[in-house]
Amino acid sequence: MDKAIILAGGQGKRMKADMPKPLFKVLGEPMLDWVIAACESAGISDICVVKGFRGEMIDEHLGGRYTTVLQAERLGTGHAVMQAIPFLSEDASGSTLVLCGDAPFIDETTIREALALHNEQGNAVTVITSELEEPFGYGRIIRSADGSVSAIVEQKDATDEQKAVKEINSGTYWFRTADLIDALGKLTNNNAQNEYYLTDTLGIAVSEGKKAGAYKSANPDIIKGANDRKELLEFNNYARMKVFEKHMMNGVEFTCLDGIIIERSVEIGQGTEILPGTILRGDTKIGSGCKIGPNVVIENSTIGDGTVVNTAQIYDSEVEENVNIGPFVHIRPDCRIGKESKIGDFVEVKNSGIGEKTAIAHLAYIGDSDIGRKVNIGCGTVTVNYDGITKNRCVIGDNSFIGCNTNLIAPVKLGKAVYTAAGTTVTRDIPDYALAIERGVMKINEGYTIRKLKTKQGK
Amino acid sequence: MDKAIILAGGQGKRMKADMPKPLFKVLGEPMLDWVIAACESAGISDICVVKGFRGEMIDEHLGGRYTTVLQAERLGTGHAVMQAIPFLSEDASGSTLVLCGDAPFIDETTIREALALHNEQGNAVTVITSELEEPFGYGRIIRSADGSVSAIVEQKDATDEQKAVKEINSGTYWFRTADLIDALGKLTNNNAQNEYYLTDTLGIAVSEGKKAGAYKSANPDIIKGANDRKELLEFNNYARMKVFEKHMMNGVEFTCLDGIIIERSVEIGQGTEILPGTILRGDTKIGSGCKIGPNVVIENSTIGDGTVVNTAQIYDSEVEENVNIGPFVHIRPDCRIGKESKIGDFVEVKNSGIGEKTAIAHLAYIGDSDIGRKVNIGCGTVTVNYDGITKNRCVIGDNSFIGCNTNLIAPVKLGKAVYTAAGTTVTRDIPDYALAIERGVMKINEGYTIRKLKTKQGK
Amino acid sequence: MDKAIILAGGQGKRMKADMPKPLFKVLGEPMLDWVIAACESAGISDICVVKGFRGEMIDEHLGGRYTTVLQAERLGTGHAVMQAIPFLSEDASGSTLVLCGDAPFIDETTIREALALHNEQGNAVTVITSELEEPFGYGRIIRSADGSVSAIVEQKDATDEQKAVKEINSGTYWFRTADLIDALGKLTNNNAQNEYYLTDTLGIAVSEGKKAGAYKSANPDIIKGANDRKELLEFNNYARMKVFEKHMMNGVEFTCLDGIIIERSVEIGQGTEILPGTILRGDTKIGSGCKIGPNVVIENSTIGDGTVVNTAQIYDSEVEENVNIGPFVHIRPDCRIGKESKIGDFVEVKNSGIGEKTAIAHLAYIGDSDIGRKVNIGCGTVTVNYDGITKNRCVIGDNSFIGCNTNLIAPVKLGKAVYTAAGTTVTRDIPDYALAIERGVMKINEGYTIRKLKTKQGK
Repeated sequence: MDKAIILAGGQGKRMKADMPKPLFKVLGEPMLDWVIAACESAGISDICVVKGFRGEMIDEHLGGRYTTVLQAERLGTGHAVMQAIPFLSEDASGSTLVLCGDAPFIDETTIREALALHNEQGNAVTVITSELEEPFGYGRIIRSADGSVSAIVEQKDATDEQKAVKEINSGTYWFRTADLIDALGKLTNNNAQNEYYLTDTLGIAVSEGKKAGAYKSANPDIIKGANDRKELLEFNNYARMKVFEKHMMNGVEFTCLDGIIIERSVEIGQGTEILPGTILRGDTKIGSGCKIGPNVVIENSTIGDGTVVNTAQIYDSEVEENVNIGPFVHIRPDCRIGKESKIGDFVEVKNSGIGEKTAIAHLAYIGDSDIGRKVNIGCGTVTVNYDGITKNRCVIGDNSFIGCNTNLIAPVKLGKAVYTAAGTTVTRDIPDYALAIERGVMKINEGYTIRKLKTKQGK
Repeated sequence: MDKAIILAGGQGKRMKADMPKPLFKVLGEPMLDWVIAACESAGISDICVVKGFRGEMIDEHLGGRYTTVLQAERLGTGHAVMQAIPFLSEDASGSTLVLCGDAPFIDETTIREALALHNEQGNAVTVITSELEEPFGYGRIIRSADGSVSAIVEQKDATDEQKAVKEINSGTYWFRTADLIDALGKLTNNNAQNEYYLTDTLGIAVSEGKKAGAYKSANPDIIKGANDRKELLEFNNYARMKVFEKHMMNGVEFTCLDGIIIERSVEIGQGTEILPGTILRGDTKIGSGCKIGPNVVIENSTIGDGTVVNTAQIYDSEVEENVNIGPFVHIRPDCRIGKESKIGDFVEVKNSGIGEKTAIAHLAYIGDSDIGRKVNIGCGTVTVNYDGITKNRCVIGDNSFIGCNTNLIAPVKLGKAVYTAAGTTVTRDIPDYALAIERGVMKINEGYTIRKLKTKQGK
Repeated sequence: MDKAIILAGGQGKRMKADMPKPLFKVLGEPMLDWVIAACESAGISDICVVKGFRGEMIDEHLGGRYTTVLQAERLGTGHAVMQAIPFLSEDASGSTLVLCGDAPFIDETTIREALALHNEQGNAVTVITSELEEPFGYGRIIRSADGSVSAIVEQKDATDEQKAVKEINSGTYWFRTADLIDALGKLTNNNAQNEYYLTDTLGIAVSEGKKAGAYKSANPDIIKGANDRKELLEFNNYARMKVFEKHMMNGVEFTCLDGIIIERSVEIGQGTEILPGTILRGDTKIGSGCKIGPNVVIENSTIGDGTVVNTAQIYDSEVEENVNIGPFVHIRPDCRIGKESKIGDFVEVKNSGIGEKTAIAHLAYIGDSDIGRKVNIGCGTVTVNYDGITKNRCVIGDNSFIGCNTNLIAPVKLGKAVYTAAGTTVTRDIPDYALAIERGVMKINEGYTIRKLKTKQGK
């Protein structure tokens, strides 16, 4: 079976953070996850991640989904791959892809086509290459007359003729697994740095009469690695623009891209307009004909067709079609907002179901509640779901009308078509069609202001 | 009388939307409206729009303001103009401008000056041209020695010499109306596409000894047409920058343009600062010395001099001078906010008048109300304007002081200098200078918490 | 003692504002302050600002921190410096730097190194220069064989040979103070404009056998002056990017810079993430490991390590570590928010202390209050701190639980572990461990909705 080894031991000192470099994020995903996703989409899911600096963070991030091995000392890329020999030996029948965990733009096509070439040519190793106008600093690919690779020459070792070569080593390789194990056993660190170089495996294979080839990728971005925050920002912008282009091709409307961040995982329907300052993350699906933004944050949520979300934040929830949300709304996790409902300004909803055509127009908190259809929640309504010890639920039946500044002390159940008078604190269940009222007598104290002013003047 | 025909039948398949292409928006206005506006500003208001794909949307958008005719089959630009022969025949005394409905950057000066040249030269047709460094793909303008136009040659038909011509056809023309009607009658579709080409009218005129001329526009943008969402985004950015430049010339301050969208119709006074994320739309006038933003949306509203609007949305309202609004404020339609008033955080105002120097500092909803001068609206105040059946008004006199969490059950009228006690639900009118209070007796239950904790521990 | 004269008399007509040009802001600071800051950081704090157009605004801005003199008539740069002769004469022992108040990117290194050269060479005057690829329009530096400066030649007076010189006058000079006073006394206005030119002092010095030198700055930005709003915007963008680069080098994370404005004075810890639309101003310090944004405004505040601020505005306050703020929060001046506390949506806090681990989760106003540790403030709670005449304080003890929609009529003191029932208006102090409740009897009116609908139908 074909497999992959991802080198993820680097520190990224210039990032100025106590974190392995491959965990730095591009468009919300660690670079390591971009690399893993490219492997997975190319059909390779038997993956070993070589960790090093703060390796426990790699383990924590992966959560056991992939094999990891530790490179305890930093003795070169060859040494890193050596740590994965047990992983390689489990099944040495196929080929193994070796990739860098901090070069996120490797793509499925490159991986697949390089493997096809590797197999077709019967290579022991196939290096994935790129052609650069300015190859300075990269390892040059030296090809034989038949197109096979005779050597990879580093900048400092290159002759003038070799320096003129524009095909460079991307740092990604396909190896026949058995040949890789064999070559790793023969690697030495007889060099100035006393390191074990993975590129030396190519020379070993060639010297043993095995074939080495090169696959030149059409994607110039596969070699990009981020070493500092500025490069990481460039990666983010690059990835952002790619995502925007995809959505524009699909018929999504943008007037201005400023401040918009859309993660790769997000789906958006045709004819939807995304306004500036909108951040869409994770497992989010936006329907068609929606208007999202400005200044919206949506994470892991589904938004139905024709829904408007204006200056609001929505987390881990489901919003149905033709809902009108905002401005200034906070939908916290585990909500389901029914179609054609309205969630207006200064409203928080949390862990609640809101029925179709229900209106929560302003200044309200609905938590741990089940609200029916065509309900009107008055301004200032609060579901008192927490008594300082436990959280309890409120249930409100269809067609009810909750007066302004109503407190609903949970657990409490209101039937269908219930009314509550403004200012009422509801402390027990209300049957269908009933009105609940708690109100004192309003007294008028005439001339109060005149006396108050006199008192003040008297001071 | 001079008139115009705007070709608006295209679909724009690459936009991926079920809408005529000229209805796609640039800076909030359909491209068709940009073209119409250029005609109108050049003094041409007798306009016929040729619709085709989803023509009913063109009609709905225009709302009867202009003549429309339907091109039921897509048989070329000449065929499109033929549909307007009845419109042309109504008054064939003057000249007719033919324009593309999806090339929004045609300008008044180009239209006016081209007409002047057209009349001065006594042309049957005057094509509006542009000079391009890279003319590939465009129809080339072939001029005679006297400067008149002998032909327009398409790319595929051009000789090498003709291909070297950099003056190209913008697709916009002035025709003497009678000559246009005449030439349309002689158009044929004897070509590979079996289409009627409008450009053939020029050859017909020339062959009959009429004069054909060309007006070279100084504006290189007149030829720009958007075919996909990405080009549309470029149009938006281009138009945005033009608007910003205009305002900067007028003395408007911008520290950073990100996320700012200002429609062409908006006026802004000198010395006003616009902060990032601000969207100004429609018939909006901002005074001088204001501070608007960040993250403000204002539509169809007037903002007086010296007013501050910080993170707020204002729709169809009038805000006077030196008002302080925000952050987190929502002014819904039909409000008038008096000068030197303050609308603070988490406040919604709707269909209400707010007097001078009145403060609504936090967490309140004022709907369908008339509030006097120097009123203080306490935090949590709600105008209970909806009883589930009808909406009613609240009236509050000058110098009143509304206590926190007051409910005002509309219809209700509070006189001058009225006080309401915090937590009162006001159910009837209050005379001038009176205090209204509805409050129970606050009881203290000593040792409650200790007992509660014991009960909890007992569980 | 070394001193500086800053020329700040210009109007900036193209800015279209009634304000001296050096008061226009770059990244929140008047250009004049950038120039002063460069002087101060180079150790020069004896500064005289020459004011002219609307000079009183310069005085008001400086607030007496520096000497100012008025140039009442605009008779040239030499005339401007003449107004400062009394300032120069106070202590003529050292050297004097003359700078333009509207060229904000002069830097400490340039000032220091130019002075070192000036002293080392024993010059009467040392002009600070820059090398430009396109020097057109600038005064050229004519050097003698020994590297000293023989003349500064203006564009219009330059020979072809002189026009080829790329070293230009930045308009900033070091003078030996005594020599400057001497040369100012000899300046004439015998020229086409009848103005006194400061550059003429160099010729005077040279003609008297004194030495004139030039210091070529490595910073190409020192010559940049803003004349209109568009150039000012470019300055802002330039300064913004410089600030971002500094923070990225320090390990601050940015996914997208759009709408972010960070003033130069702001400090940010390692590993903190800043999201789009965030504006950080004044004396603000952000800790490490924070997440700030999107759409946050923070002015003159301190934010502790690990704190999250999401869509909130914070002014003149201190927020401790691991606090969770937002979305939609307004912290007004003079707050101290204790560590591990939570300030949730639609909450305003003003002039208050909030204890550790206290939660104010939603829709509340806390003003002029002292709130203890581990307090839970229910939704809709309002501190009624204003009675229309004075503001009073609320005090709430540790571990208290304030029920929803509670009014706390200040001044009032709640003890430790106090409970208030939802909807209670607290009008007097509550002892430790007590429950306060003000509530009427909730009545149920059965069948109300049915009768109401019948009445409505009857209408």
